[in-house]
Amino acid sequence: MTDFQPTDRTRVRRVANRASYDRDTIYSILDDALVAHVAFIAGDAPVVLPMAFVRVGDAVYLHGSTRARMFETIAGGAPICVTVTLLDGLVLARSAFHHSVNYRSVTIHGSGSVVAERDRALTVLRALTEKIASGRWEAVREPNEQEMKATLVVEIPIVEVSAKVRSGDPIDDEDDYALPIWAGSVAIERRYAEPVADARLPGDIEVPEHVRKLTRR
Amino acid sequence: MTDFQPTDRTRVRRVANRASYDRDTIYSILDDALVAHVAFIAGDAPVVLPMAFVRVGDAVYLHGSTRARMFETIAGGAPICVTVTLLDGLVLARSAFHHSVNYRSVTIHGSGSVVAERDRALTVLRALTEKIASGRWEAVREPNEQEMKATLVVEIPIVEVSAKVRSGDPIDDEDDYALPIWAGSVAIERRYAEPVADARLPGDIEVPEHVRKLTRR
Repeated sequence: MTDFQPTDRTRVRRVANRASYDRDTIYSILDDALVAHVAFIAGDAPVVLPMAFVRVGDAVYLHGSTRARMFETIAGGAPICVTVTLLDGLVLARSAFHHSVNYRSVTIHGSGSVVAERDRALTVLRALTEKIASGRWEAVREPNEQEMKATLVVEIPIVEVSAKVRSGDPIDDEDDYALPIWAGSVAIERRYAEPVADARLPGDIEVPEHVRKLTRR
Repeated sequence: MTDFQPTDRTRVRRVANRASYDRDTIYSILDDALVAHVAFIAGDAPVVLPMAFVRVGDAVYLHGSTRARMFETIAGGAPICVTVTLLDGLVLARSAFHHSVNYRSVTIHGSGSVVAERDRALTVLRALTEKIASGRWEAVREPNEQEMKATLVVEIPIVEVSAKVRSGDPIDDEDDYALPIWAGSVAIERRYAEPVADARLPGDIEVPEHVRKLTRR
């Protein structure tokens, strides 16, 4: 697969060596994150909200209630921006100025359209559920007709996109390397805690394998 | 301190019982997060980017390079939206439809202004550094005049703001509670890994206490 081409909007100008238009890099960041920040314009001001999302093929998908006013703007094809950020660690430099964080982020500029076909919408909802916990879809009750009708699935093709990645050591001013100051990085690890059963779950229903494996290391 | 008053923009309509305008709740979410997603309008489209931030008193602060074109819009007082999200866990319901995540988020609508006074800007940069690692400021080289001149510190007063918090068990349809399906939640823990020294750090400089304590549990 070919990589993405930078546009006026996606060409990273600040610290351009952190930019990437590589498809594998961009998709792996999208697939590692559960939540995207989605921006749209309401009146004459921007609004940005966190939303669950999933990538399937060359598009990302959001979903929302047909009754959610905010989501109408997104579903209606207005210009939106979708940014996904994974915070990977602290970067502790010898100077305050060069402190930073290690991160991976992707920014998509585009617009959404409603996935009207029931089977395609169901495929997206399945992918969303499987992203939360692989194996979950087969274990739970599938959406009924009423739930499908209450849910808007919105597709945003991944076309105008860039990634930005910072990793590794701090970059200090050359003179500062002689200072007797500890410098380095501290990674931030995300991990799942032990599953907690719903208060109303009967005691004889054991934690299934697809949930147990989330916490296995 | 009084709580915030909802406005047309900040009154949460969808799942309104998750909304909060409580000052302590809002400030604790802001103080727990290192990265905010900041949205602004560029041309006729929204843009949202991740940025380090810090709260000091009743304002949040961003900083950027005086050479960053994107940051000029934010520094220049255009309408912006700042959203901070902490993903706390997976919510595994008995139905696919009711799957969710536990999270805490804050959304601020407003605009920024440049902190022109050097001492106030320095106080903010100190707070930013201390947020990354408490005790770090005293250990590192402070910003020099050239670095201060290259940095724009922008203040966004916290006035129009709301929090949204989801925690605890899934909420299933009443009929579904009888299904023999495991349901519950899985918390996501964030923790710091062992510090990694910069490749150029002399071997006789030990990890200082303010860095070691990050990983202590």
